Amino acid sequence: LNGCCKSEQRGSTMAESTNMRLRLPLLCIILEVILIILFGALVEYNDDTHAKMWNANKSHSATRDDYENEFYYRYPSFQDVHVMIFVGFGFLMTFLQRYGFSSVGFNFLIAAFSLQWATLMQGFVHGMHHGKIHVGVTSMINADFCTGSVLISFGAVLGKTSPVQLLVMAIFEVTLFAVNEFILLSMLGANDAGGSMTIHTFGAYFGLMVTRVLYRPNLDKSKHRNSSVYHSDLFAMIGTIYLWMFWPSFNSAITNYGDPQHRTALNTYYSLAACTLATFAFSALVNPEGKLDMVHIQNAALAGGVAVGTAGEMMLTPFGSMIVGFLAGTISVLGYKYLTPVLESKLKIQDTCGIHNLHGMPGVLGAVVGAVTSALASPGVYGHGLQRVFADAETGKWNPQSRGGFQAISLAVTLGMALFGGLVTGFILKLPIYGAPPDTHCFEDGLYWEVFERNALFIFGNGNVFFSSSFFRTHAK
Amino acid sequence: LNGCCKSEQRGSTMAESTNMRLRLPLLCIILEVILIILFGALVEYNDDTHAKMWNANKSHSATRDDYENEFYYRYPSFQDVHVMIFVGFGFLMTFLQRYGFSSVGFNFLIAAFSLQWATLMQGFVHGMHHGKIHVGVTSMINADFCTGSVLISFGAVLGKTSPVQLLVMAIFEVTLFAVNEFILLSMLGANDAGGSMTIHTFGAYFGLMVTRVLYRPNLDKSKHRNSSVYHSDLFAMIGTIYLWMFWPSFNSAITNYGDPQHRTALNTYYSLAACTLATFAFSALVNPEGKLDMVHIQNAALAGGVAVGTAGEMMLTPFGSMIVGFLAGTISVLGYKYLTPVLESKLKIQDTCGIHNLHGMPGVLGAVVGAVTSALASPGVYGHGLQRVFADAETGKWNPQSRGGFQAISLAVTLGMALFGGLVTGFILKLPIYGAPPDTHCFEDGLYWEVFERNALFIFGNGNVFFSSSFFRTHAK
Amino acid sequence: LNGCCKSEQRGSTMAESTNMRLRLPLLCIILEVILIILFGALVEYNDDTHAKMWNANKSHSATRDDYENEFYYRYPSFQDVHVMIFVGFGFLMTFLQRYGFSSVGFNFLIAAFSLQWATLMQGFVHGMHHGKIHVGVTSMINADFCTGSVLISFGAVLGKTSPVQLLVMAIFEVTLFAVNEFILLSMLGANDAGGSMTIHTFGAYFGLMVTRVLYRPNLDKSKHRNSSVYHSDLFAMIGTIYLWMFWPSFNSAITNYGDPQHRTALNTYYSLAACTLATFAFSALVNPEGKLDMVHIQNAALAGGVAVGTAGEMMLTPFGSMIVGFLAGTISVLGYKYLTPVLESKLKIQDTCGIHNLHGMPGVLGAVVGAVTSALASPGVYGHGLQRVFADAETGKWNPQSRGGFQAISLAVTLGMALFGGLVTGFILKLPIYGAPPDTHCFEDGLYWEVFERNALFIFGNGNVFFSSSFFRTHAK
Repeated sequence: LNGCCKSEQRGSTMAESTNMRLRLPLLCIILEVILIILFGALVEYNDDTHAKMWNANKSHSATRDDYENEFYYRYPSFQDVHVMIFVGFGFLMTFLQRYGFSSVGFNFLIAAFSLQWATLMQGFVHGMHHGKIHVGVTSMINADFCTGSVLISFGAVLGKTSPVQLLVMAIFEVTLFAVNEFILLSMLGANDAGGSMTIHTFGAYFGLMVTRVLYRPNLDKSKHRNSSVYHSDLFAMIGTIYLWMFWPSFNSAITNYGDPQHRTALNTYYSLAACTLATFAFSALVNPEGKLDMVHIQNAALAGGVAVGTAGEMMLTPFGSMIVGFLAGTISVLGYKYLTPVLESKLKIQDTCGIHNLHGMPGVLGAVVGAVTSALASPGVYGHGLQRVFADAETGKWNPQSRGGFQAISLAVTLGMALFGGLVTGFILKLPIYGAPPDTHCFEDGLYWEVFERNALFIFGNGNVFFSSSFFRTHAK
Repeated sequence: LNGCCKSEQRGSTMAESTNMRLRLPLLCIILEVILIILFGALVEYNDDTHAKMWNANKSHSATRDDYENEFYYRYPSFQDVHVMIFVGFGFLMTFLQRYGFSSVGFNFLIAAFSLQWATLMQGFVHGMHHGKIHVGVTSMINADFCTGSVLISFGAVLGKTSPVQLLVMAIFEVTLFAVNEFILLSMLGANDAGGSMTIHTFGAYFGLMVTRVLYRPNLDKSKHRNSSVYHSDLFAMIGTIYLWMFWPSFNSAITNYGDPQHRTALNTYYSLAACTLATFAFSALVNPEGKLDMVHIQNAALAGGVAVGTAGEMMLTPFGSMIVGFLAGTISVLGYKYLTPVLESKLKIQDTCGIHNLHGMPGVLGAVVGAVTSALASPGVYGHGLQRVFADAETGKWNPQSRGGFQAISLAVTLGMALFGGLVTGFILKLPIYGAPPDTHCFEDGLYWEVFERNALFIFGNGNVFFSSSFFRTHAK
Repeated sequence: LNGCCKSEQRGSTMAESTNMRLRLPLLCIILEVILIILFGALVEYNDDTHAKMWNANKSHSATRDDYENEFYYRYPSFQDVHVMIFVGFGFLMTFLQRYGFSSVGFNFLIAAFSLQWATLMQGFVHGMHHGKIHVGVTSMINADFCTGSVLISFGAVLGKTSPVQLLVMAIFEVTLFAVNEFILLSMLGANDAGGSMTIHTFGAYFGLMVTRVLYRPNLDKSKHRNSSVYHSDLFAMIGTIYLWMFWPSFNSAITNYGDPQHRTALNTYYSLAACTLATFAFSALVNPEGKLDMVHIQNAALAGGVAVGTAGEMMLTPFGSMIVGFLAGTISVLGYKYLTPVLESKLKIQDTCGIHNLHGMPGVLGAVVGAVTSALASPGVYGHGLQRVFADAETGKWNPQSRGGFQAISLAVTLGMALFGGLVTGFILKLPIYGAPPDTHCFEDGLYWEVFERNALFIFGNGNVFFSSSFFRTHAK
């Protein structure tokens, strides 16, 4: 019993250095005030959201009918993406036994910040209209996409960073995301509707570099908390299943109207289904007793969505999508089993959620598949639909091989930007001013949230007796 | 150990007075039979749901195309609203450690009743067609909206009322809601698409008055159950996040097609994002150790959606929306911290979920913002879109200042109706015939649900030993 | 304490026979490879998903506008159906205290397999286009529907089957589903848009026959695990509420565009609302203390959606829908209370989830209601909409009485196919090669998943002391 008491005292002594009372409110308020000022100065409704402009500024002589408003093409997809960002990512990370509040709560905080900041950064970079950033449902989806990238990086540093660090990371990552996205989509003319490169590869390698710089040699002091309990794995499955179900909407959310949007959803649906069978197969195969591992099911089953993020809008066919999905699930499970321990022991990359397996490798696979599928595109296969997929096919100077080459260059640019950005951001986050948790108290909600420990006597089958803690909020509502 | 036994016996002795065996079935069956008879006599398909009328009774000479059916404009929004009503409200209230079944279960029951009753009441009041009430997706959304108001009031009395009391409350509240809505929208010509006044202000002050009349001086006998545990707070976050994500659909669900629907969703999106940053900031700031409080995150982060419920469809701009959202989050957190304890101790208002902070004050703020934004509207800003937002702008007698004045009157009417209605309903609910829980057994599923207590020995860090109960269903399925 | 140790050793001894290390990976990989090959040979994009065909192969002279792509009519409904399949069914079955991983995990696996296999089987049977199966959002919905049928059967055998058995069951059930669906929809010209017959009746009686053949006389050895705990019932409510909310989308997902889709959603909405009141009423009425039973709320409240699966698209009226919903809820609760125990003791049907009460009887009710409503259809009621509901009304040889007769024949065919198919499949599943769990370890995640037992000392109110186990994953991520 003494041990418990000591542990609690240690907790409150340490609270000095991790106290968020001034740091977090100051940062949040300053950031939000800056955002509000910049929105006031720069952001305007686009033609489809503006009372005056809708049906005033028309390209055709005829009045546009209401059903032509982009809202009706994109809003259902937007809502699915929104669910993935807030429920999907948020609950996927609740697998940790004592970090559920932080997982879903900090996910909520940094997503709410990032989507505002991304609106500005993507607006700046992708072209202003007479000095103004135009917003509508498409900009909302793009902002959510950029946010997704930040949340992927969050997965690598989960449990080891304060909310202040996470907000600072988001500031830099969103900015670089917008620059990288601009280089790929506008300068290189790349296709990447579902973000295999811009979102997944970028977010993963950015996060991996950040966690490398923030390497904690004594993280094993918090080892007992870096695992799940039965119910926390079920909460995490809520995240998994929502990500899985809505990935077809994610990949198709900003493709062109008509067949591209429809086809992308279909391809993603089949890729994910095949990926799920591969995941169950290899999860049982790599376990000596043939038992399934919740980590694999929660994560690797999603790799199929990542891996068709670039080629999904192309004529990949269900056949091609299933092959890609099957490969993605396979490399993801093998990564969790064999690569993650090596990355940690040899390269000192402590990747809490295994984002390298879910977003890193499948993102690179998706980029390669996209390059190959682009290089194989032809008017014979696409007909008049070619220019609905490849924007520069309209120009007549269509050359699929060089298209494929630009896709490959895009991957290289993304990797470079992500690793460089993560390096710089990592060193900025290393400054001892953000209230990061000590090595002994990582993966612990109690540092940043009002919780109350209640200890229970547990008796193991082998006769050992030990104490386990449950958390309770300290006061009634 | 004796104490436990006694507690269980006490439970079964008391069960006499809270026994629902006749009361609940009788009420449910009588209500449903009445509903069915009234639906049989009065309810008809509208033109968009009727096999004969769709494309028969057209306003234009041309046949309407299927995509012009209101289903395709409104059904995705309806489903999002539906999720907010049943998952959002239902799970938000599962934060209580021993009241999860009742929270999500009674929410389910009274919502299923209210949406049927609301269809009738709103149909009666808003105009019948040759003696018939016409139904379609818009009436479904409106019925869900009215239900939302009842569920807000439920939040104030959560844990202290029997299901029979809740159904009786719903009968009266739905009726008054429909009358108030008619006065505001039809007689005063008010704008309130997202229901800052009709839904949130009305539901909150109605519920606060009911809980005031039902004041329990000895409620502290159930104090130990009026709090959350770790997992119950995570379940509640499911509710929070769904409410937060789908609020743009809620506010835009019944605005006019085209730019108003699109703009409302956009404004709400930014208001909520800004509100979330304010919530985190002030939650840490008001805590001596800078720790975040789950109560604030679960509730105050949603106030931004409430506060743009009236002005969201107007040209509020993202800039304006963010200011409103930031203010809403701030007053909501401060309300939870400083106002709720005062309301309870001085005004004897026991508000279980703090609906005054989430729906009451932000609803009033939303009404004020709506009045101001209406008063500032001009053809210069809205162009031809003016009449898509302000219905009476078509008449030519457009006067924004008087519009703003009518909005302000609408708020006053709503407050009066809510307080008066809550007062009367509260006294009706005080009759000792509904099987209300005794003061010692509030916030307790065991009174109304089949659960089975299993007690565990817990040993605190400070050496204290005590018993905690878990609940188990008594019989296998 | 020795007892615990023994129990764990027994577990590992038995693990030999239930070891999935080779069986599950081999089956998954072989199945997926076969699927990929068949997709490569047979599956093509349909006109709405094909880059070349969209707007090339048009029936009218004019170019079709993008909003006419079936994607915009059906994709929101598809996503709702998808949520029902993966979250709805998956979490509904997590009510078991130690079977949450398997419930949501095996649901995930067999659904991911079934939707691929169903695409092929439904494509084969319902007509190929020049030797190719055409896919798009409608085929995705149909594949999900067929998957739903398999998941219903899963409910009957839940906890008593290995994942290998479940995959084998899915192979046969999907195939027979496609044949039965073809007989009903194409040969008999039946209406069954929401699948009262094809999905619910078929899935239920197929599953009941399978579980009859797999009867375990000593299943009471696992009795203590065949029940819920407090939190598992809350997880199950996530499934229930999502199924309930999205059932209007389920029933309307593949009806014709325009009024039929709109009307079906509306009818289902009212049927479910009435069903919920009946469920609460009868759940309290059949309990001696008037307490509500979570089993009823979780399941019977959904019967209203099943029971309007056939007639929902017809002019059933909200009045008729509410009567049907009320009846469905009533028979479902009574079934759980009085029929399920009899089925188990007299007919040796061990129905874990009570699918007979949720899908069996309400499915038959829905078929009868559909037959009666068809027989009462007339041009006077439907006008020109008649042929949008009854396909053969176009031919001029419209005879509602014979339509009603064919509906009744369809029910008989479905029952026959389901019972025969379940019988054969049951005997195939009885072969001792699939690693089925022993009678002592049914309803136990530990057999197939990496979990780790931690035992806690529990002390009952009556003074008894016993050990309870919690599960933890063995290793950190």
